[in-house]
Amino acid sequence: MIDARAFLRSKRDRRAHAPEEILSFIAACTRREIPDYQLSAWLMAAFLNGLDDAETDALTQALLRSGRQYDWSDLGRRSGDKHSTGGVGDKITLVLAPLAAACGVLVPTVAGRGLGHTGGTLDKLASIPGFTTQLSAEAMRSQLDRLGVVIVGQGPDLAPADGLLYALRDVTSTVEFEPFLVSSIVSKKIAEGAGTLIYDVKCGSGAFMKTRASAMSLARRLVRTTRALGPRAAALVTNMSQPLGFAVGNALEVRESVETLKGGGPADVRALTLELTALLLERSGVSADLEAARMRATRGLDSGAGWERFLALVEAQGGKPASVAEADGLGRAPVTAMATAARAGRVVAIDAGALGELVVTLGGGRRAKEDVIDPRVGLMMRARVGDALAAGDPLVELHLAAEDPAAVSRAAACFTIGEEGPSAKMELVLDRVD
Amino acid sequence: MIDARAFLRSKRDRRAHAPEEILSFIAACTRREIPDYQLSAWLMAAFLNGLDDAETDALTQALLRSGRQYDWSDLGRRSGDKHSTGGVGDKITLVLAPLAAACGVLVPTVAGRGLGHTGGTLDKLASIPGFTTQLSAEAMRSQLDRLGVVIVGQGPDLAPADGLLYALRDVTSTVEFEPFLVSSIVSKKIAEGAGTLIYDVKCGSGAFMKTRASAMSLARRLVRTTRALGPRAAALVTNMSQPLGFAVGNALEVRESVETLKGGGPADVRALTLELTALLLERSGVSADLEAARMRATRGLDSGAGWERFLALVEAQGGKPASVAEADGLGRAPVTAMATAARAGRVVAIDAGALGELVVTLGGGRRAKEDVIDPRVGLMMRARVGDALAAGDPLVELHLAAEDPAAVSRAAACFTIGEEGPSAKMELVLDRVD
Repeated sequence: MIDARAFLRSKRDRRAHAPEEILSFIAACTRREIPDYQLSAWLMAAFLNGLDDAETDALTQALLRSGRQYDWSDLGRRSGDKHSTGGVGDKITLVLAPLAAACGVLVPTVAGRGLGHTGGTLDKLASIPGFTTQLSAEAMRSQLDRLGVVIVGQGPDLAPADGLLYALRDVTSTVEFEPFLVSSIVSKKIAEGAGTLIYDVKCGSGAFMKTRASAMSLARRLVRTTRALGPRAAALVTNMSQPLGFAVGNALEVRESVETLKGGGPADVRALTLELTALLLERSGVSADLEAARMRATRGLDSGAGWERFLALVEAQGGKPASVAEADGLGRAPVTAMATAARAGRVVAIDAGALGELVVTLGGGRRAKEDVIDPRVGLMMRARVGDALAAGDPLVELHLAAEDPAAVSRAAACFTIGEEGPSAKMELVLDRVD
Repeated sequence: MIDARAFLRSKRDRRAHAPEEILSFIAACTRREIPDYQLSAWLMAAFLNGLDDAETDALTQALLRSGRQYDWSDLGRRSGDKHSTGGVGDKITLVLAPLAAACGVLVPTVAGRGLGHTGGTLDKLASIPGFTTQLSAEAMRSQLDRLGVVIVGQGPDLAPADGLLYALRDVTSTVEFEPFLVSSIVSKKIAEGAGTLIYDVKCGSGAFMKTRASAMSLARRLVRTTRALGPRAAALVTNMSQPLGFAVGNALEVRESVETLKGGGPADVRALTLELTALLLERSGVSADLEAARMRATRGLDSGAGWERFLALVEAQGGKPASVAEADGLGRAPVTAMATAARAGRVVAIDAGALGELVVTLGGGRRAKEDVIDPRVGLMMRARVGDALAAGDPLVELHLAAEDPAAVSRAAACFTIGEEGPSAKMELVLDRVD
């Protein structure tokens, strides 16, 4: 039995924990043998005095071991998945998962709900009538074997200690600490049973990481810790200074994903999906090198193979393929309104985080766990950073459940229009961790 | 209602709390509106990021306000008390309280039980048959008015928030933090209703503060915070490199206190009692200056006035005066044994802390709250630091409940005998905070 007081004293005095100590401490917490007041004091001590790489790896291992870990190796195929740290308009998973499967990777995605201003894959999928994300392990295995892709919600059996820690971090102001973020993300992704993990670390006004340095640091640690625990890994740091694509909001984003799967869609969504898919194909060993992987991914998209796999996925998980295949199959919000530019000038900056918050306010996201989402509401971007506008030009179209002039003003206020500003196209991929 | 998360975030980010914030937070903790896991995370954040003087004062005020505060001002006399941070063989309170009362100060002592290797005044008094330390406020007031002195145990009504914090500090390894020590000591002493507080901060092998710097720092903060909350204050930093006096153990210490009250006793006990009493007389305004105060205290001791007041105190609180007046009135341990020097040489050092621990092992102190104390057991020092010894000379006499050769060896091992060493008499008072 671990001596919790000695363990706390050790971190209080800036000493590093031995990996076995962290494993014992978290195991005892999971068995509820350590009271919350000791765990929370440790969270604060670790937050303030730091956890080094070896301690972060051990914490990740401890969270992973607290629950079940899927193992798909008997299916005899290379497996992999992509994880995004969360952005506004980030619908990449919906396109990448079936596309990568069509290219030969087994994709056992365990997805989350929306957090704060960023949308969650589960919420987007919930806008497809009938689609279920609760499958038994046997159903997951059979679907993976048949289609190569499954997207489910995180049950209480994956890394339950992470849930325990997160609840305490939330109430003790110890959330924003890199080793806690890394161990939480990596433990849950490894529990999926994926052999390769590609991280998309978002950076900018619509991301949790506001600076390139903090995003790059997180990207490095995600890759490092993942490799330390076994799987192959790589990461991109990508631009989240404005929403990804045009659509923000659950049904609107599914529709935009469908356009991308059909070979169209916004250029940034297409480009980032192809780059992340290629990285997954290359890292997992399905393609020999990145060039071959890019060609394979592009072919998978343009041939319609990804789209067909998406339709099969929707059908396999209880959704009606017609609802995504038809233009209005997901329904539309009853009211639309346009926010326009009050003056002429160039779009200098967009507060993507505030636009994400606006969608939550419109009913498209949750403030509390029990909130019900209206899948139809959201935004369609009509201007992007660098665009030159005349007064009255459209900025963003709001899809609303009812008339809401205040929301239109709030949307317009998210755009900074000035004389000077970036006229060059913004880079999509800012950094890479290979 | 205070926002506990914001309060935690503030200390996490090294910001100083406003005094009102600390008052609200501790008040909410006392009402049990703040869960332990948030309080413990704050304790760790404060421990690691510090509390400044104003925050320490506010915490002390908050602990004080959590319970009742006695007020003896209607008795129309100057009141005061002395507090020791704890040492081995420290029986000063037993002599000082009646002596100061005999010199004209109202002494409303609220005393504690022994903690770790240091004895407690309550445990020493419990060796006097019939003596009770549980008195109602009315009984305290009436006795104070009549005798000028009362010694009671700390009930749950004084600074209850301190008990709450201490319990969590103990299990989260956040005990040894100066602002917590200061607020805990000062809030309880001010709750007594004393108008002047004299602190005896012990320093050395038998004290919690091992270095002069740490003792001096604590002394300064005790005085500073006490004054900030109203009472007058001063402190001495005194030597605890060896037990104070010869006796260590409850009944043995009462006997030595009686000798001192009768005008005899060990030189160090007499000298320190007189110095602390004089400081109390001077600070409280009973004597005009320290020289007059020293004369008054010496006269009070040598005239027998202090001794008479002690007998009256014992009788007033249910004890038999005969039990302290007669040589064997408190009983004696059935077995005595002598630890002797294995070699000739000079006593270079004495591990007073280990001697204190030994007395606990013999049954003279508590490891757990419910342990029963044998008041008869203890030690009588026969050698002191600087003494030149021949092989076989006595070091310390053990008073035992039964034969115990292992204890005799342990006692001898507490003495370091060498060639080189201090031959000069050790200073008793190391520093002063006036």
